[in-house]
Amino acid sequence: MRAGLALGLGLALLLLVAARRRRRRRRAVRAVLFFPSRPCCTEELLAEAEGCDGRPSPCPCPLPRADCSFSRLLRLLLSARRSLELCLFSFSSPELGRAVSALHRRGVRVRVVTDAQYMAVRGSQIGLLRMLGIQVRHDQEKGFMHHKFAIVDKKLLITGSLNWTVEAICNNRENVVIMEDAEYVQPFLDEFERIWEEYNPDNYTFFSQRKMND
Amino acid sequence: MRAGLALGLGLALLLLVAARRRRRRRRAVRAVLFFPSRPCCTEELLAEAEGCDGRPSPCPCPLPRADCSFSRLLRLLLSARRSLELCLFSFSSPELGRAVSALHRRGVRVRVVTDAQYMAVRGSQIGLLRMLGIQVRHDQEKGFMHHKFAIVDKKLLITGSLNWTVEAICNNRENVVIMEDAEYVQPFLDEFERIWEEYNPDNYTFFSQRKMND
Repeated sequence: MRAGLALGLGLALLLLVAARRRRRRRRAVRAVLFFPSRPCCTEELLAEAEGCDGRPSPCPCPLPRADCSFSRLLRLLLSARRSLELCLFSFSSPELGRAVSALHRRGVRVRVVTDAQYMAVRGSQIGLLRMLGIQVRHDQEKGFMHHKFAIVDKKLLITGSLNWTVEAICNNRENVVIMEDAEYVQPFLDEFERIWEEYNPDNYTFFSQRKMND
Repeated sequence: MRAGLALGLGLALLLLVAARRRRRRRRAVRAVLFFPSRPCCTEELLAEAEGCDGRPSPCPCPLPRADCSFSRLLRLLLSARRSLELCLFSFSSPELGRAVSALHRRGVRVRVVTDAQYMAVRGSQIGLLRMLGIQVRHDQEKGFMHHKFAIVDKKLLITGSLNWTVEAICNNRENVVIMEDAEYVQPFLDEFERIWEEYNPDNYTFFSQRKMND
């Protein structure tokens, strides 16, 4: 009787440990970044991503080297190995442009959806990305394509209020939420694919109505 | 021996069921809404929240009664029983204004943080909310207060790209993420309290610089 009880309890313990391990393995990344970002130097991070031969020489700028919201955002994007989906209302940050270009050069499949009106503003990175051969599609609608999200390797979602502009990063009150839970990632992936197909240039009607001002 | 084994296994089963129940009980709400919202009638939802005597009379408008992204957003906000924190760049949707007013009248403690420049645009709901006695604070900064989040009863976070305007709801591509996980809700609550204190009118400097245009 006692031996059986001990065996049963041992089995129960094993099952509980296995269940807990399974839960831990599945534990998804969940984090929030707030902006404006404290100023910090991102030069070495970007130079490394751009694949300088050898170790990049230390940046002489006086900005602190500690992590900030912006360097954490860059690091998450630069972790992409296979794919990067970008769905961005406004994209004019040169540093984010460098990060996305580096990923494209490294062989990551980058696809960009953006807003037709804002992709033409001064400083927009969209033209530069297109010149590198990155696929870009845009709306032809009266409303804005106002999303601001990125999906890394189809499993990490980065979304929030932050437009990818220097003003937003350095001056505005903004948030970026980082999530790996499938309940969030999958709907955003589906939304991206839906918009990607809708904005297929085959469907363009030229000389469409101009947008209303927001 | 057999009886002991059975007892042990029974115990293991009980422990596993209890662990699973505990996990289920803790399961947080996780959802995503996309916009533009399909058109749908929200009149009855709002009339009910406004506490019409008896059952509100059916709305004669021809819009469908099925749920849409906008009615789901309204329903989540109207679920507030104790508190509602709003941190909104732009707030001009009359329906959302009615929902927030109804909550205030029902005794929910509503606090609003908004952007100084956008609270003065045509159709802004901020003046109406203030007239009802709702506490509103705003920035005095060069950058925008660009957040777009709400926290219901300090446990449900509603955040995303959506400004609370008719254009955003009806015309734009937008997202709203709904979350109860403490890893997200707590940082947003902390951010709200931080901003709320920073924007305390006691700290105003009058005749400050005008903002740069975004």
